[in-house]
Amino acid sequence: MTECRVKECRVKDRKTAILEAAARVIAHHGVRGLRVEELAAEAGVSKALVYYHFGDRAGLLRHTLRFIGDRAERYTGGGPPGPPGTPGPPRAPKDAALELERRLLLELRDTPEVRENSTAWGELRASAVFEPELREELARAGRQWVREIADLLGRIDPSPPDAALVGAAERLTVLLEGLSTRWLIGVLPVGHASELMRGAIAAEVEALRLREPRQACAVA
Amino acid sequence: MTECRVKECRVKDRKTAILEAAARVIAHHGVRGLRVEELAAEAGVSKALVYYHFGDRAGLLRHTLRFIGDRAERYTGGGPPGPPGTPGPPRAPKDAALELERRLLLELRDTPEVRENSTAWGELRASAVFEPELREELARAGRQWVREIADLLGRIDPSPPDAALVGAAERLTVLLEGLSTRWLIGVLPVGHASELMRGAIAAEVEALRLREPRQACAVA
Repeated sequence: MTECRVKECRVKDRKTAILEAAARVIAHHGVRGLRVEELAAEAGVSKALVYYHFGDRAGLLRHTLRFIGDRAERYTGGGPPGPPGTPGPPRAPKDAALELERRLLLELRDTPEVRENSTAWGELRASAVFEPELREELARAGRQWVREIADLLGRIDPSPPDAALVGAAERLTVLLEGLSTRWLIGVLPVGHASELMRGAIAAEVEALRLREPRQACAVA
Repeated sequence: MTECRVKECRVKDRKTAILEAAARVIAHHGVRGLRVEELAAEAGVSKALVYYHFGDRAGLLRHTLRFIGDRAERYTGGGPPGPPGTPGPPRAPKDAALELERRLLLELRDTPEVRENSTAWGELRASAVFEPELREELARAGRQWVREIADLLGRIDPSPPDAALVGAAERLTVLLEGLSTRWLIGVLPVGHASELMRGAIAAEVEALRLREPRQACAVA
């Protein structure tokens, strides 16, 4: 076990408090509603401490993006399951299918935590049109997420080439983000969003299976 | 032919000039960067005229959203094709499949017009989290677009129930919006976005076909 020295813990607590406050402020007032002065007040720290830890506004936004991504991974139980074929849960194709659905649908739950996290994530993503310094972190997080979903798809059916698994994973993650946005802006009920997501998973899994040559039917 | 009286034409021109300027400003500076004073200057009209035509800021945003939607419909050659089975192009399933792909992929072209229009649309959609008065217009435009795509899917294959066609159309339109966002924030090349969209169309069309009972294969 690593020992957490008192000073280190306090620094970590304060950094976390600032990031938690940033996610909260962004979810309620948007990225452009984020003033470092108000954020410092919300986190109960000095403005100087925010700059000390994150350098500038761009650094703060990048770290907030990563913090939100890590939080989402925690509540969806994510993290790399390892490449297809290596030992590690879930092993059976049926378990992998359940895990895939679970992982994706956990982002569509109407809880304060998911709502705040997804709203802040969507807002940061949308802001990247005007704040190019966010792009690298968004691209990195996107690639990692796609890899995790592609690995789960590969456990359901290891026969398709990796590019096909990655393509399906890209579509599923982009669709999930889109459904989440429509839910959060209030034009799509969360239950219907989940239903559409289930349909997309079924269609993609089926399309991957159809890549295999099928047994010809005898004409009667 | 309707006669366009000089005064009517001038009013229409000025309204259009304001809406064109609004789309331009939103695409470059975001919804929250839109100040009515600067917009009026950009459109070459008075601030009072903006308020006269659109009432308030919320009214202006709603009209801009509809203007952008109409413009997208123009460059994708959209508009309701009528319910499945009624006369009107495209009639043959193969033509409908081509038309579906064409209609969706025209939103993923790197031209100044599509880029500006899609950026402004994405920004207005993202802003709806903080500007609830945009939701009704977003929901209306979304429903209309889904109906058009569902009708095209029904021309490719009229056998699935309407709910299945609508579900597939919802997924395709949400995915397209998500791919468009990723392209516009610079994390997905437009060619790859088109490739992913083609894959989704193929998967959805195939999944709709799989709903039909299939001829059983004779086991050799």
